[in-house]
Amino acid sequence: MIGMTNAGFVRARSPEAKAQRREAILAAAAELGLRHGVRSVSLGDIARAVGIAKSALLRYFDTREDIYLTLAADGWAQWARTLRERLGDPVDTGADALAAALTESLSAQPLFCELLAHAPLNLERHVSIESARAYKLTALDAVTEIAGLAVGVEPRLTPSGAGDVIAAVTALAAALWQISHPPESLVKLYAEEPRLAHASVNFPVRLLHMTRTTIAGVLAVA
Amino acid sequence: MIGMTNAGFVRARSPEAKAQRREAILAAAAELGLRHGVRSVSLGDIARAVGIAKSALLRYFDTREDIYLTLAADGWAQWARTLRERLGDPVDTGADALAAALTESLSAQPLFCELLAHAPLNLERHVSIESARAYKLTALDAVTEIAGLAVGVEPRLTPSGAGDVIAAVTALAAALWQISHPPESLVKLYAEEPRLAHASVNFPVRLLHMTRTTIAGVLAVA
Repeated sequence: MIGMTNAGFVRARSPEAKAQRREAILAAAAELGLRHGVRSVSLGDIARAVGIAKSALLRYFDTREDIYLTLAADGWAQWARTLRERLGDPVDTGADALAAALTESLSAQPLFCELLAHAPLNLERHVSIESARAYKLTALDAVTEIAGLAVGVEPRLTPSGAGDVIAAVTALAAALWQISHPPESLVKLYAEEPRLAHASVNFPVRLLHMTRTTIAGVLAVA
Repeated sequence: MIGMTNAGFVRARSPEAKAQRREAILAAAAELGLRHGVRSVSLGDIARAVGIAKSALLRYFDTREDIYLTLAADGWAQWARTLRERLGDPVDTGADALAAALTESLSAQPLFCELLAHAPLNLERHVSIESARAYKLTALDAVTEIAGLAVGVEPRLTPSGAGDVIAAVTALAAALWQISHPPESLVKLYAEEPRLAHASVNFPVRLLHMTRTTIAGVLAVA
């Protein structure tokens, strides 16, 4: 075990080793964020999980926010990839098929849903301008691709209407994710306070309902 | 000046003096939150602005999150009050009148818009169960009253549809507020990166558009 730990502290020197180390850092941060909530994971926690010193981690990322913003960018790219596979040659078309695809794909990316709230509130504010640029451009590419796919599935959507759908769905997913994953103290409160029993929210069910509503609204005002 | 500072440290003993001190703490936190953003204000900053010791402040509130969650509750109550005055005996009715009332009243409460994002993500997670209960019940009362007012202005809304409108509008306001108030680094990035020029968002204009869309959608799926 001591040998393994020491091996972890060896500096990665080849480009391949560096890329592997970077992926290991991201994977550890993703796992810790999913298990404990992104807000409570420190740079030290991530370094410990990878088995490297904090100083070694800082050769790859400036801040914990930099790590999580990179994972948020990966989340946007993954979401676009999933939807490309599902909607590129769609079996069903129309508003309901689009709502189901957007919602189910988001529900399958819990860390991305958590990061959608953290990105504008915390993450973007504690990274270099270059990290912010990389994140924003990746997100923009994903939104552009998803908007195109959405118009393909529901041709009554304009490109700008499709953009409104994506903006609303991600804002709703960010809010609903936090509400549907309350801390222990709120779980206890909801159980003991009958007037707050409604506050428990089923994320995929509620997101699907709100996404259908949003698409219907975008089509109605177009 | 030394006399004034010392006077600030005298313990408030009468109920009136205690209530005044509590209001002074909330007012100082509100002003600092508006000026610098809620995320960057510490308990020590608030104590300094009131002119009391941090230990004295802790007799009123457990944490900085407790202070800001109290201000968020005040925000819900204020929003309901504004809408009661505007919509209790409305001049205009219909979906557009409702969208304008919801949007303009939210835009007039910038601190509340900022707190709408912080409450579920950060504030609710760092307060006692009693503080969480007080916040949730105040918010619930406000939502119930605003839903009733919304149905009065747009009678095609069901009570549950009105609830969906309020849930969506507050989620959108929370997201749009953060996006439309970027940190300096993002302002610089948007200015120098043509592909990101669209990322600058006018909060009231965009919120009105998304609110109209949401109401149209709720009416369409009802």
